[in-house]
Amino acid sequence: MTENPLGPTAVAQAHERIAPFINQTPLFRSTLLNHWLGHEFVFKVEGFQKVGAFKVRGALNALLSLQEKGDLPDSVVAFSSGNHAQAVAYAARQVGVPATILLPADSSGVKRQATTGYGAKVIVTASRAEAEARTAELQAQGAYLLHPYDNDWVLAGQGTACYEALKSGLRPDAIFATCGGGGWLSGTYLATQLLAPGTPVYGAEPLQANDAAQSYRTGGIIRFADSPDTIADGARTLCVSPRTFQYLKRLAGFYEIDEQEIIYWTQWLAHLIKTPVEPTSAVAMAGALAWAKRQSQPRQVLVMLSGGNIAPQAYLTIWAQDFLSVTPDRHAADDPI
Amino acid sequence: MTENPLGPTAVAQAHERIAPFINQTPLFRSTLLNHWLGHEFVFKVEGFQKVGAFKVRGALNALLSLQEKGDLPDSVVAFSSGNHAQAVAYAARQVGVPATILLPADSSGVKRQATTGYGAKVIVTASRAEAEARTAELQAQGAYLLHPYDNDWVLAGQGTACYEALKSGLRPDAIFATCGGGGWLSGTYLATQLLAPGTPVYGAEPLQANDAAQSYRTGGIIRFADSPDTIADGARTLCVSPRTFQYLKRLAGFYEIDEQEIIYWTQWLAHLIKTPVEPTSAVAMAGALAWAKRQSQPRQVLVMLSGGNIAPQAYLTIWAQDFLSVTPDRHAADDPI
Repeated sequence: MTENPLGPTAVAQAHERIAPFINQTPLFRSTLLNHWLGHEFVFKVEGFQKVGAFKVRGALNALLSLQEKGDLPDSVVAFSSGNHAQAVAYAARQVGVPATILLPADSSGVKRQATTGYGAKVIVTASRAEAEARTAELQAQGAYLLHPYDNDWVLAGQGTACYEALKSGLRPDAIFATCGGGGWLSGTYLATQLLAPGTPVYGAEPLQANDAAQSYRTGGIIRFADSPDTIADGARTLCVSPRTFQYLKRLAGFYEIDEQEIIYWTQWLAHLIKTPVEPTSAVAMAGALAWAKRQSQPRQVLVMLSGGNIAPQAYLTIWAQDFLSVTPDRHAADDPI
Repeated sequence: MTENPLGPTAVAQAHERIAPFINQTPLFRSTLLNHWLGHEFVFKVEGFQKVGAFKVRGALNALLSLQEKGDLPDSVVAFSSGNHAQAVAYAARQVGVPATILLPADSSGVKRQATTGYGAKVIVTASRAEAEARTAELQAQGAYLLHPYDNDWVLAGQGTACYEALKSGLRPDAIFATCGGGGWLSGTYLATQLLAPGTPVYGAEPLQANDAAQSYRTGGIIRFADSPDTIADGARTLCVSPRTFQYLKRLAGFYEIDEQEIIYWTQWLAHLIKTPVEPTSAVAMAGALAWAKRQSQPRQVLVMLSGGNIAPQAYLTIWAQDFLSVTPDRHAADDPI
């Protein structure tokens, strides 16, 4: 299936549409980090977004677009164990449409509560097959399936975060974002095409969940049979979609990050910029550093931090070892990337 | 020994003096939390302060005051295992005076690094006796001992955080701050006397480190023989000082918080306002909630969050149990305070 690519102006339109409902999130810098690494890292902090992650941008753009067209459905359905669930619940409430979220049985209690807290109905499903069956049932009853990344409105909405960063006048030498299903990265690419078209956009992915990097190398979509095992839960997708892959193919490159490196930056970013950074977001920082180390002069890098929701159980994995005992200057020098 | 009390204008003068060197930290609110609890909690977030804690305010006010008087010493010495060490290192660098910080052997590596990172010399001491001996030696060589709370300039400086909050126009029904040595709380009291003199200021303290609450009740300073055992490391002081006690005596009251409650709010505040909150700061939130639950109508409470530096080891204690599974509305209802 071929998809017609979105024009970059879709991102500007999305931003105008969703702006009244979202936070304009801040750009953070750490003087100490930049001193240590000899480059300027600028962080777009989506942890301060509604529901604590960028996902609300895409969900809002989709539902507000349907509303504009007079096509608002009777209800919305989404399947997610993560931030997309809360984002759809939040967005559906804004347009006054009931939402049903299918959550896997092993999803964290706090995310379940937040989703119901935003007024959505939650159905816990034991298997993917059950989730698909329930979704089909709800669609037959008139529900609109809001896919986390296989939806043009969602991609354009996710791009509004990078759009805000570039709109503020920032002109980085490179931009990094983590790849899950590819929506966040596709949106980032589109925003860059609109406002800073010469700037290279790179993807970063956990080495243990590198389907997109493999797809990028081979030119065709690689699909994992099972969810990959990584602390970066936002990157546990099986594969990207044709819709996102058409943008991912045009990126400047991919960096693959090992688990220890992800945890190292999860600890250090929380410590330095004083906001919880999801391991999924730390992947992008690790990629940005690997790129910066190959540069022969000081560079400015925009690192898109996707969110700040960390499950209680994940904290124990993240802090099992003390990585704060090795400062980033020594870490960057030792690291054999 | 009697101490002459500071006039509240000392806080305004301190703010004018230190303003160019510090961050005007934000006031945060959580819509969800306020919805759950039926009151409005407003957080002054000193985690976003230089060195990640309020301590830099007092240290800067002391050294800048000495500079104004033409009394800048040849060097500065301080003894601290916590945020005061980094604060003195940072402040000394601003006035161009070398600093020596005495750190106990069991202090965390990350704090040691940060202290040397700000340009201070660190001496690791095995015992309190050794620290005192080294301090006397350095003082004999002309060093100025910058005490974390037994110093009027420090108290006035710590008050500038609450001063900023009230200066913004906020007029809360009550103000809460945690008690360690009493400097933070004394400064908060002084700022309130200046800008909102009718507003009650309350102290909050870990139940396991309740020397100030006991002192408040009995009217005389109670001193622990050994450092009390609490996750709130900023409240592990042995006792308050006569200098701070003269203000603490005039507070509206003290709340004593058990360890589980401290950890509950450390988890929830990080989750809701998306910035790491030290257990020491969570103590103040727990006190504020205990107060709010006794109110017969909705109230606005200012909660002073002292800082956001959490040692790697402390994360494991904080997240050993999942408190995010019980939302604050149910927690507040169940809790037999």
